[in-house]
Amino acid sequence: MIKSPLQIAREKYVPKVPVSLKGGVKVVEGNKTESVADQAEIAKMFPNTYGMPVLSFEASDEKKDYPAINVGVILSGGQAPGGHNVISGLFDGLKSQNSDSKLYGFLGGPSGLTDNEYQELTSDVIDHYRNTGGFDIIGSGRTKLEEEAQFDQTLENCKKLGISALVIIGGDDSNTNAAVLAEYFAAKDAGVQVIGVPKTIDGDLKTDMIETSFGFDTACKVYSELIGNIQRDANSAKKYYHFIKLMGRSASHIALECALQTQPNVAIVSEEVEAKNMTLDQVVDQIVDVVVKRAENDENFGTVLIPEGLVEFIPAMKALIAELNDMLAKYEDEVNALESNKERREFVAEKLSADSSDVFTKLPNSFANQLLLDRDPHGNVQVSMIDTEKLLIDMVKAKVKKLKKEGKFNGKFKGQAHFFGYEGRCAAPSNFDADYTYSLGNTAAVLIADGKTGYMASVRNLTAPAEEWVAGGVPVTMLMNMERRHGAMKPVIQKALVKLDDKPYQTLVENRTAWAQNTQYVYPGPIQYFGPSEVCDQTTKTLQLEK
Amino acid sequence: MIKSPLQIAREKYVPKVPVSLKGGVKVVEGNKTESVADQAEIAKMFPNTYGMPVLSFEASDEKKDYPAINVGVILSGGQAPGGHNVISGLFDGLKSQNSDSKLYGFLGGPSGLTDNEYQELTSDVIDHYRNTGGFDIIGSGRTKLEEEAQFDQTLENCKKLGISALVIIGGDDSNTNAAVLAEYFAAKDAGVQVIGVPKTIDGDLKTDMIETSFGFDTACKVYSELIGNIQRDANSAKKYYHFIKLMGRSASHIALECALQTQPNVAIVSEEVEAKNMTLDQVVDQIVDVVVKRAENDENFGTVLIPEGLVEFIPAMKALIAELNDMLAKYEDEVNALESNKERREFVAEKLSADSSDVFTKLPNSFANQLLLDRDPHGNVQVSMIDTEKLLIDMVKAKVKKLKKEGKFNGKFKGQAHFFGYEGRCAAPSNFDADYTYSLGNTAAVLIADGKTGYMASVRNLTAPAEEWVAGGVPVTMLMNMERRHGAMKPVIQKALVKLDDKPYQTLVENRTAWAQNTQYVYPGPIQYFGPSEVCDQTTKTLQLEK
Repeated sequence: MIKSPLQIAREKYVPKVPVSLKGGVKVVEGNKTESVADQAEIAKMFPNTYGMPVLSFEASDEKKDYPAINVGVILSGGQAPGGHNVISGLFDGLKSQNSDSKLYGFLGGPSGLTDNEYQELTSDVIDHYRNTGGFDIIGSGRTKLEEEAQFDQTLENCKKLGISALVIIGGDDSNTNAAVLAEYFAAKDAGVQVIGVPKTIDGDLKTDMIETSFGFDTACKVYSELIGNIQRDANSAKKYYHFIKLMGRSASHIALECALQTQPNVAIVSEEVEAKNMTLDQVVDQIVDVVVKRAENDENFGTVLIPEGLVEFIPAMKALIAELNDMLAKYEDEVNALESNKERREFVAEKLSADSSDVFTKLPNSFANQLLLDRDPHGNVQVSMIDTEKLLIDMVKAKVKKLKKEGKFNGKFKGQAHFFGYEGRCAAPSNFDADYTYSLGNTAAVLIADGKTGYMASVRNLTAPAEEWVAGGVPVTMLMNMERRHGAMKPVIQKALVKLDDKPYQTLVENRTAWAQNTQYVYPGPIQYFGPSEVCDQTTKTLQLEK
Repeated sequence: MIKSPLQIAREKYVPKVPVSLKGGVKVVEGNKTESVADQAEIAKMFPNTYGMPVLSFEASDEKKDYPAINVGVILSGGQAPGGHNVISGLFDGLKSQNSDSKLYGFLGGPSGLTDNEYQELTSDVIDHYRNTGGFDIIGSGRTKLEEEAQFDQTLENCKKLGISALVIIGGDDSNTNAAVLAEYFAAKDAGVQVIGVPKTIDGDLKTDMIETSFGFDTACKVYSELIGNIQRDANSAKKYYHFIKLMGRSASHIALECALQTQPNVAIVSEEVEAKNMTLDQVVDQIVDVVVKRAENDENFGTVLIPEGLVEFIPAMKALIAELNDMLAKYEDEVNALESNKERREFVAEKLSADSSDVFTKLPNSFANQLLLDRDPHGNVQVSMIDTEKLLIDMVKAKVKKLKKEGKFNGKFKGQAHFFGYEGRCAAPSNFDADYTYSLGNTAAVLIADGKTGYMASVRNLTAPAEEWVAGGVPVTMLMNMERRHGAMKPVIQKALVKLDDKPYQTLVENRTAWAQNTQYVYPGPIQYFGPSEVCDQTTKTLQLEK
């Protein structure tokens, strides 16, 4: 393995942990908990793991003897910076309890559990991955662990390896499944505990008890570095509007955080678009307004941040896409038989409802074509593959051209499209994420030693120095409500979208007129690991404002 | 101006400079010089500035009295990290000679000189821009300074401000024009010196005397950070081939340097493609070979680096584009009148020469359409806007599908396209670029004080610690040869393409089979400013290998 000088230097970094994780630990139980909604139904579905108390760790002088145990760990879903440190924190925690304990990594995500593909993780392996990005130590995967047959297979494989606890590092869905698995094992008295760890760069897995999911901090910093660089370019060349789409699935947390860090001219928040029942045209008009106002100051350049999920949050587009999914399934052969894109668009426009047809025919042709061509294996439009950033450039360009003809716009408009996602998901973790994830791994080890199951590792008070963080556990059922999934009501962790009455969004609202009309770009620069604390150890603006 | 914590911390950074720039300076003249080619013609065109000696500075105890002077500076062409530090180095150099000297920045590039748009640069202004990226302090522009009327206007404006020296910070074209201006002023005995500073992220302005242009180091490090992150993602998710196009205009220096830093599975070098007279199909076949071999090891993921200028270096594509430019100008109305892209492609295919028609009809439709639609205001195909990365994905996909049908490929292939350019041009300079550019600015001030004109600031021995760097000057004419430009032979600085017998390219050749078949990714991580020297102060692999 050839390593860069930075990788080598970072291997020596010792993550900072809360005081309670530095020596002996006392687990303190809080009050009994309730789920966020649908309490009766969820209590009924989780008779063995519902209502458990929130746990907080305190430092303790008491020395305990822990038996040697075997623990399994998996990484589930999309990568997030810090995954490797959860595993090293878990490993070090287990070894500090009993040096004969063993950690097995199941390979390629949840399927590794059911297929019994694993590797023992020894310090020879782990030491190469400390403080690094990526999930490549054992790989990840998107298999869903939700069928009883899978649970039984998992149990059988755990038994073979003498595993008495599983740690599942994943997002909202994976932690939901971890809770179901915990309940299943508890009901069977199977002797395998299940602990979840909150991961996702999207930032949509959070509550009072889970202040942030890991990876969000690092990913937002990488994207903000790039946005800052592009803004400096825009402000130097003074000739382009850069439309920058940012990963984050449905929620706009990443776009919002990056906006707070960089102060772009426009930042779209999908949750606002939905709440105001805006049309695509209205979204475009908002951007055009900014372009026109900036041209009056002779500033024909700018930046526009776009959350990945925008299109799904525009009610009229959502309706159109739903109709298209049905129609393209029904008329697949007819549509494919048509010669040109023009004929296809005309065929479809005729079949749509009046409202959707109106929306569809007003779309730029290239985008309408994309809606007809890019379908997944089930025939559905692949929303995540829609080039929203290019669509918006095309639509702004068309409107601005019209305004120019009418004498209402005297500037210039040229767009450049960017999409950032893969650039940040596997970045090496910031000091914050390195510390946070290592602490989460340590915490999981304590929860296991304390015999807990159905808990998520939780480290709170994250805007304070790491020594003052509060480690503990949160019953996963506490985060749940009932939602319709694939036609049936299911208990799931409530996804945390951007709240329009919370401080982060409100801060954007208070400032966005000034950011739009004046040029007040901030240039965060690259993540630093070795410099002054105010440069290296600050976490997200979102977290600071939420506090 | 709201600044990020890193910006604030970096303002305090004191760039490292060679010993000769730390106190008194002695300017040592070397031998007389010759241009790299066409000596007689160039000598004739530059009677006053041809053949001047290379200059080296040495530290000196002698204290000199310098008169107060006024100096002008412009930024020309595309941004490169470190431009602001050239200006601060120049400013500090002038002020250390005589605190009454003044520095004027001309705004928006060369047009600021002719239009007399300027701003005095005082420490109040300069101090906000020390060690920052971008050219926003005075802006840049792409106006070419090559007509006598412009020269006369420039002289008149210099006289108004009492300016006795101009510093032109630019790439090969801008430095060529600086030399012509220097000769013009010298011939007229106009009393205005002209000094150039070698800038471009593309890395194509270099000779023995100009070891690297500034900005190349930083830009390559930003791109390599992102490539490393994407490689870690590829190696974790194990499901995508990432095709990453990199800025750099014609030359492949950036793609090559990034390859040396990150060890991708494939790195295309345009200069090799041209030297081997390869077709687009052959380029694609090379990638397909790697995809097939990796699939045999069950590795259905990877990275492919693509230089921006590739298409222009494929001889058959170059010929096709030249033919298309002529044809689309000739048949513009006919082509525009056609209804569908299919009809347009058929129309064009019939008119092309047999060879070009063959190339054109084999292109994927979407790409062929792009060649017909994306034209600049002169009707030319805009090569820089061609999505080569998507084209290659489409072509690889098609070939792999065919191989699958024939039973010769058992893996999977899914592509993701990226293009990095704007992300790195305005990044804050690395320590190397911060030191190098500040030293170049200092050097320009010494050349001015020593009465020189027609020189480019030169700082050499760049792989040694900054203290041991050798500052001095190189006559611009030394870098020139005669080339055809717009139908006439002109004296220009020879563009430095990747040399296929040099160490950097040879190192790629020696390693690429291993990098292709095995996964040997290196993850450079983000630029660091405060850590250990081996992390913060190393310059490019290209420069190290060339030494």
